[in-house]
Amino acid sequence: MPRFFINEKPNEKVIITGEDAVHIGRSLRMKIGEEIVLCHNGMDFLSKIENITDKEVVCVVSSIMQSQAEPSISVTLYQALPKSDKMEFIVQKAVELGVTKIVPVLTSRCVSRPDAKTFEKKRARLKKISLSAAKQSGRGIIPEISEILSIEKAIDDMVKNDLSLICYEKGGASLNSHDFRALKSVGLFIGSEGGFEQAEVDKCISKGVIPIGLGKRILRCETAPICAISIIMNLSGNM
Amino acid sequence: MPRFFINEKPNEKVIITGEDAVHIGRSLRMKIGEEIVLCHNGMDFLSKIENITDKEVVCVVSSIMQSQAEPSISVTLYQALPKSDKMEFIVQKAVELGVTKIVPVLTSRCVSRPDAKTFEKKRARLKKISLSAAKQSGRGIIPEISEILSIEKAIDDMVKNDLSLICYEKGGASLNSHDFRALKSVGLFIGSEGGFEQAEVDKCISKGVIPIGLGKRILRCETAPICAISIIMNLSGNM
Repeated sequence: MPRFFINEKPNEKVIITGEDAVHIGRSLRMKIGEEIVLCHNGMDFLSKIENITDKEVVCVVSSIMQSQAEPSISVTLYQALPKSDKMEFIVQKAVELGVTKIVPVLTSRCVSRPDAKTFEKKRARLKKISLSAAKQSGRGIIPEISEILSIEKAIDDMVKNDLSLICYEKGGASLNSHDFRALKSVGLFIGSEGGFEQAEVDKCISKGVIPIGLGKRILRCETAPICAISIIMNLSGNM
Repeated sequence: MPRFFINEKPNEKVIITGEDAVHIGRSLRMKIGEEIVLCHNGMDFLSKIENITDKEVVCVVSSIMQSQAEPSISVTLYQALPKSDKMEFIVQKAVELGVTKIVPVLTSRCVSRPDAKTFEKKRARLKKISLSAAKQSGRGIIPEISEILSIEKAIDDMVKNDLSLICYEKGGASLNSHDFRALKSVGLFIGSEGGFEQAEVDKCISKGVIPIGLGKRILRCETAPICAISIIMNLSGNM
């Protein structure tokens, strides 16, 4: 059933306008009486179409339930900004796999170093990709794309999770050494091309971030997050 | 240390020619006395450069060891051919993550349906991507890209593995229900855009292929193999 995210918690009656209204009426050619799901903040509002015009779709909510697709664990991906369009790829895949939030981080080895203003344009695009991936994969939330953070701010934010992990190619324990079923939130820090500098890893460890390894093969910076999120979702019982 | 795949098992002395020789001499600017690793069939041959000319590099093998990066489990990915360049992406990521072989399959819902001759061109490109990903990730073998198979032939091939699995979006057990540490080989069948037809899944089941699910979020056809291979490598102790 088609899913649409809405900004405010719906009352009994909801009026959809803009692109989504056009999509329902013209692209999907839906008719009065057909059903759609309105998604807001992890809740699914099953709704029946009461009226369709060129500019708006009027729906009546018939039942409310928690979104079935949301994982029981909240994973925030702290991703050192990679080159070219790799961040777009990472956002799309991470959202499909169930992350709650993505935080782009500037580390020493980031080749791409946009200033805050330039990144805001990129961020707008990443937000669109998050929305589109959330719709396609049936998510109950649109994962947030944070502003870009320095490594210091990222670490301070990361350690607020129940567990925070840094992927380090020079070693670290297996993800199997953590009991993810007992956790509500995890922060996962992945490097850009070339990984992290030792001093950055040491800084993370001194604040309580735990190094993990992803096996003996060297994964590209866009493969590592997809791999680690898949494994964490599986170990936490969300796959 | 730079790694180069060689076609034949090396004797004491190895002469490298062609692109690899140019790469060693001109791109890496390596000198006499420096070391490289020659890879053949899962074995690493540590070798010292004895001479470099414009056209060839002469190496002497100093020690031999099993490649440390090869997983203990052999995973063959049977991938229904997706649209556009998604197969290239899947090959790159699957090789990084440790698969042994990739078999492209034609299923009912494949939109891209090349004939054998057209696919051979595509296959040459996929083989190059496999080689390049194997080098980059430190693999001990170059995973094979098979010719394209009908679903019937793919199933017959797949069931030769210790365990064969089909990812089915309408459900199936979690990957956690299998003891991958006890297995030597696994076949993994993933659909193209739109997944499988029920009749195809039934045919697989009747031959002993087991359906598995990858959670409640709908994964794109290029995300599902990366996710499943990551989890299998983790559950088999190879991450």
